Amino acid sequence: MSASVSARIDEIQRQAAQASDLIPLAGGLPDARFFPKRHLGDAFHSALTRPRQALQYGWPEGEPELRDWVAARLRTRGADLGPEHVVITNGAQQAISLSAEVLFAEGNTVGLQAESYPGAIDILRALGLRFVSWRMPAHGYYLMPAMANPRGTAMSDDQRAQILERAGREGTPLIEDDAYAELTFDGQTARPLVADAPESVVHIGTMSKVLCPGLRVGWLATRHPELKSIVAKKQQLDLQAGSLTQRILIEYLKGDHYEGHLTRIRRAYARKAKLLRNAVLRNLPGFSVGEPRGGFSLWLEHKEPRFAAFDVPFLAAAIEAGVSFDPGSSFRINGNGRLSLRLCHSGVREEDIEPGVERLARAFQQVSLKLSAA
Amino acid sequence: MSASVSARIDEIQRQAAQASDLIPLAGGLPDARFFPKRHLGDAFHSALTRPRQALQYGWPEGEPELRDWVAARLRTRGADLGPEHVVITNGAQQAISLSAEVLFAEGNTVGLQAESYPGAIDILRALGLRFVSWRMPAHGYYLMPAMANPRGTAMSDDQRAQILERAGREGTPLIEDDAYAELTFDGQTARPLVADAPESVVHIGTMSKVLCPGLRVGWLATRHPELKSIVAKKQQLDLQAGSLTQRILIEYLKGDHYEGHLTRIRRAYARKAKLLRNAVLRNLPGFSVGEPRGGFSLWLEHKEPRFAAFDVPFLAAAIEAGVSFDPGSSFRINGNGRLSLRLCHSGVREEDIEPGVERLARAFQQVSLKLSAA
Repeated sequence: MSASVSARIDEIQRQAAQASDLIPLAGGLPDARFFPKRHLGDAFHSALTRPRQALQYGWPEGEPELRDWVAARLRTRGADLGPEHVVITNGAQQAISLSAEVLFAEGNTVGLQAESYPGAIDILRALGLRFVSWRMPAHGYYLMPAMANPRGTAMSDDQRAQILERAGREGTPLIEDDAYAELTFDGQTARPLVADAPESVVHIGTMSKVLCPGLRVGWLATRHPELKSIVAKKQQLDLQAGSLTQRILIEYLKGDHYEGHLTRIRRAYARKAKLLRNAVLRNLPGFSVGEPRGGFSLWLEHKEPRFAAFDVPFLAAAIEAGVSFDPGSSFRINGNGRLSLRLCHSGVREEDIEPGVERLARAFQQVSLKLSAA
Repeated sequence: MSASVSARIDEIQRQAAQASDLIPLAGGLPDARFFPKRHLGDAFHSALTRPRQALQYGWPEGEPELRDWVAARLRTRGADLGPEHVVITNGAQQAISLSAEVLFAEGNTVGLQAESYPGAIDILRALGLRFVSWRMPAHGYYLMPAMANPRGTAMSDDQRAQILERAGREGTPLIEDDAYAELTFDGQTARPLVADAPESVVHIGTMSKVLCPGLRVGWLATRHPELKSIVAKKQQLDLQAGSLTQRILIEYLKGDHYEGHLTRIRRAYARKAKLLRNAVLRNLPGFSVGEPRGGFSLWLEHKEPRFAAFDVPFLAAAIEAGVSFDPGSSFRINGNGRLSLRLCHSGVREEDIEPGVERLARAFQQVSLKLSAA
């Protein structure tokens, strides 16, 4: 997607965000109704009993107790990592931008899945990297192996073996974005690639999807020899992640509510995903629809190639009809000749899902009529 | 200072931070006893009544109400700026790194004061810039005009006129780091340079020194035409500043405690600065001592050139004696043939100031005896 189309989409979405009656099927926001407000409140109180830790400067690599927690959790998933391999960042976004800047050089090729997180594409493009398919040899990789955004699927065992051949045996650096890995509908969390290639994989996680984005707490974990440079870069960029939000999180995690919370939101998101998929199957018959195993979204592609370049007019018509979506082109480094879109069930109320998809269907009908008339 | 000396100093300071009986005259940390814990607690409660704003994603440029507050405050200091000219960042450090990356290009010259904030020197060096005196023509400038770190002094009217000639009339980009501007002992806050050259000066402020660093809330404010690129870069790096900490700050500022807090801490820091200066005059007669008008620190230079290269052994001896300081070389792009150091009164208890300086004097005596013997 070109920068000007991207800016135009951004502008439309921003204007749409002001409309109070809009049904938001865009954005990938977690459901604010699921935020553990009361337990975070309790955690804040505990945090303030240690003002020196909660409100003072901290280390660039983050709070030791939180790094401990991250490492311990990754060990339960098979990775041999300690707190010394973990850096706390401002969300996953900063973990990606830091790693990419340190590991990749201008002009390098970087292997991606056919669809990827737009925030990562943005970073990689700004670094002057050239995009190739992850199936090709490349200087480095950016992947979401456990739970891909936007498709909500995991890499197969064969695919994992193929990429581990490069990252593990050949030592090619690989950024493993695991933002959605815990959000499987069945609660099964895949073994992270960093477990099998700890010195070339930089593993990335975040609390933004499972807890809430407003804390801005993410992390990276790796035995990559460049870890020290990543910490130095982090210090240069903004000294450290927020002491207060890290401390709130540490206190929250001590409280033993996290697993129960995960179980509850997995179930709730699974239900919303199903409602959305059924609504799409009923109302948008021209589109083929994925079957996500987790995450926040559904990936749609129109079966007929003639709609390929219609995502911006479709988006404008949808917003006009009172519903938003994310144009598929934002997720793609190359078009594949199909109109595609990401619909998110995560941020919308259950009762708004069906009406939202109906509005979308009406908007699409209008656009396709105009196209046929033209 | 070379990177290896810098790493060595960092290592010594880190080890020292573990020692419980160390008197910390290093680091520039604000006094944790001054953090408005109770009012921040109240603000957090108000923040949690709006979980959608406090815990959800926000805009890359920051929360509108906080941007309003920053702009309004700068208007009281003479700058014609609105919220649309303000970006909220993770502390002043990120505001500096973002501005420098967007405004300066590799190989450019950048004009600095004789001593500067080491975090900024780090950023500018990593960008491949060449340092010159701010009195010389340069591609850009990084200055602390209102309250310089480490000297605690303001630029004179003549100096301001000289730099405004370049930034204002010639349009040379200038990063104005105003982190300590509100921390004058007499409560008089200087007119910011951005008031006189809003399109070339990027003004930077932070809550880290006046409130607490753990929130990680800073900002930049400017009418520079590259503001849009700065916001795009911010979004790429980490999406946005923390929603929760911004919301806590907004609620705190609504509470009308800020001016009273500022008055109290100005008085308290003024008293500590005086205690420190008197202790230095009594115990370290070989050093010339500045007379700060605000800020967290005192700048010392030894009168005799023969001690010039002794800051690392002096630091090691001081830590051994139970006191830390910041070697002057960290603040300098070029040595001037004098042993120099920054002493901070901010993070230390009043009753520890005199004993701390006495330990420092003993350590210096040891080092100078060794030097004479060698």
